Amino acid sequence: MKGFFQLISSEEFLELFSRFSPLSAESIPVQNGLGRIPCGAGLTAGEQLPPFSRSTMDGFAVRARDTFGCSESEPALLEIIGEIAMGRAGTAFTLKPGQTAQIWTGGELPQKGDAVVMVEYTHMMDEQTIEIFRPVAPGENTIRAGEDFEPDAEILPQQRPLRPQDLGVLSGLGKTALSVHKQPRVGIISTGDELIPPDQPLAPGKIRDINSTTLAALVTEAGAIAKCYGIIEDNLQTMLTVCEAALHENDMLLLSGGSSVGRRDFTLQVLEGLTGSELLAHGVAIRPGKPTLLAACGNKAVFGLPGHVASAMVVFYLFVRPLLRQFSGLGPSHGLQQITGISGQQIPSTIGREEFVRVSLQPAQDDTPPLAMPIYGKSGLINPLVQADGLLVIGRDVEGLDQGVPAQILLFP
Amino acid sequence: MKGFFQLISSEEFLELFSRFSPLSAESIPVQNGLGRIPCGAGLTAGEQLPPFSRSTMDGFAVRARDTFGCSESEPALLEIIGEIAMGRAGTAFTLKPGQTAQIWTGGELPQKGDAVVMVEYTHMMDEQTIEIFRPVAPGENTIRAGEDFEPDAEILPQQRPLRPQDLGVLSGLGKTALSVHKQPRVGIISTGDELIPPDQPLAPGKIRDINSTTLAALVTEAGAIAKCYGIIEDNLQTMLTVCEAALHENDMLLLSGGSSVGRRDFTLQVLEGLTGSELLAHGVAIRPGKPTLLAACGNKAVFGLPGHVASAMVVFYLFVRPLLRQFSGLGPSHGLQQITGISGQQIPSTIGREEFVRVSLQPAQDDTPPLAMPIYGKSGLINPLVQADGLLVIGRDVEGLDQGVPAQILLFP
Repeated sequence: MKGFFQLISSEEFLELFSRFSPLSAESIPVQNGLGRIPCGAGLTAGEQLPPFSRSTMDGFAVRARDTFGCSESEPALLEIIGEIAMGRAGTAFTLKPGQTAQIWTGGELPQKGDAVVMVEYTHMMDEQTIEIFRPVAPGENTIRAGEDFEPDAEILPQQRPLRPQDLGVLSGLGKTALSVHKQPRVGIISTGDELIPPDQPLAPGKIRDINSTTLAALVTEAGAIAKCYGIIEDNLQTMLTVCEAALHENDMLLLSGGSSVGRRDFTLQVLEGLTGSELLAHGVAIRPGKPTLLAACGNKAVFGLPGHVASAMVVFYLFVRPLLRQFSGLGPSHGLQQITGISGQQIPSTIGREEFVRVSLQPAQDDTPPLAMPIYGKSGLINPLVQADGLLVIGRDVEGLDQGVPAQILLFP
Repeated sequence: MKGFFQLISSEEFLELFSRFSPLSAESIPVQNGLGRIPCGAGLTAGEQLPPFSRSTMDGFAVRARDTFGCSESEPALLEIIGEIAMGRAGTAFTLKPGQTAQIWTGGELPQKGDAVVMVEYTHMMDEQTIEIFRPVAPGENTIRAGEDFEPDAEILPQQRPLRPQDLGVLSGLGKTALSVHKQPRVGIISTGDELIPPDQPLAPGKIRDINSTTLAALVTEAGAIAKCYGIIEDNLQTMLTVCEAALHENDMLLLSGGSSVGRRDFTLQVLEGLTGSELLAHGVAIRPGKPTLLAACGNKAVFGLPGHVASAMVVFYLFVRPLLRQFSGLGPSHGLQQITGISGQQIPSTIGREEFVRVSLQPAQDDTPPLAMPIYGKSGLINPLVQADGLLVIGRDVEGLDQGVPAQILLFP
């Protein structure tokens, strides 16, 4: 098997993830919840929001029927029994027929009060009496208790990262802590005798490690927590020792090394040598990204990524990111925005491989899709990635894409 | 002027930001750079990337002309002068005509070597001699020194948040620190005698503070740093003291209180009472969001936001977020994705106000735009925001939108 791959399709690769479960729950303060995924069954409100019926205007709380039929020429006359100060119980007052109470925006309605007349449609006759020029319907200019959420209402959609408004709801309901799936922890290990850390001076034959920084940022971008273990020497026992320790601390490992056949075999040996590991994938029918390895150690995943940064990034977006999202409590999708673009050039492709072509987008006029211009460059280069807006997808059984035809594009986040 | 507004348009509101400058620079480690905006003129590479010409294949480094004309039937015979080990200087070897050196993916080419023959197209005759079956062109299967970046190349696009690949480039060039615009700091202050913090039990007439949590998360989402100062009592001197202190620690303040006329007047008094403040806006012709206030204190901004969370959120996305992005070194745009949707219902609107209608999107088939269904609900409710995917925009001079017509939609991030 040395050096040969049993290629699987990208769909088959994603199906391998069905064996992995979302991470367990942890309780966090609501104010740290942005982007996290709630854990467990639908959370219910537990109480009414708002907790009492409120005015949405400055004006006078009334029994709506007392205003029926009134007009500029025939105003309704009501007796003012008091003012409901902000933050005080409106229910301290009870409106009898013909009575009203002054109220402010957000104030609690008095008992038997069911609507509010805006101050603009009133005229104070004296301190006890007010004229009302416009009738109001029951409920008008009010929000009733529980109108936002009743106690048994589910408050948050499932399987969606929490947004600012979701956290607002939790605060409004007095929930200060929240059960969410743990953030996946990802260990990043570089191998390669030619690599040196970015902070060290160059030496003959040496090149600085680009992949650790790039992969760590991709992990962060995906909402997970990255930890870099540096550059580990090409020694199987050393590598296994570092990987076992890193696996203990993390939910996933990303091994990234050179692209030589020897390096691939070395990574394969590492994956197979880990305690309790099971090799799930050894090569995938995509370009770039073919020499991708995946192993499972229980519910933890170990990826052997291609050495070239452009290839590693494609594999990250197609496979690593979906698994991180699945660990986080979402579905196993990349979550990248997909748009339709128009191919700006003829793009050749290879039958039997799904191709992912780096493209920059040129906005088109009106509502026509943008023009996708391929950015050619060897996969060992990083400059094309800096220029690219996303990846144009060419199907496995397609020989190429003509100029001017629609194409599916995955946008970088 | 009490309670009356001089409404300006949303475009005029954004033009007010021209007086504010991006925040000053700070130096950060590259690994913390995701999403930050580089400061200053275009950064150049300073050295070549890659630092030397490299092989992209396992095989044999050659002088390309030595392979010209060779074939399966007439292989070229070359003398092997050694193996270039990974991470060692390839330039320790010099190829004379007819010579070759074994090389691995990522290895440095020997002197005078200008191409690499893949190992698949070679046959070892003995330890000193190799047959080559396919000619290679100069440069083939190599990346030349500087092919990614030459020393004078600008490495990062201006005015774009840093992406993983940008950080990878910096690492590859040995840049471990980076000059970026400081992250804006935003103080959030709630006012209102009816408010209590989310962690306190309800009492008659009291409601929990929703806005602080929501606004803090919106600030975080925009890449800035939020600090909540809690609920401050409705006393002008107390409020001014807290605001002056908060303004000292932050680049922007968000004051959020009730929507009563009295509360608006109070917020106006606060804005006008701050040392060196200049009132820039007092009302904007949008709905919801009309009673928005903006003042400047030097290069710092103070917003008086509408009390209802739905209104505050619209104002945040339309105005607060663009100013935060401008402070961060980007242009004064909201940076929200804009799409075209089809209005799923007839939506009434008011002449003279730009309207922002909460909508949920229903995916359509093929490439037709999604259906935008308005989610009606009073602006004091937060539930419609939880259900909404974005805001449908209805222009200022439009009376409403018919069912089935295209409409512009700002998507929530």
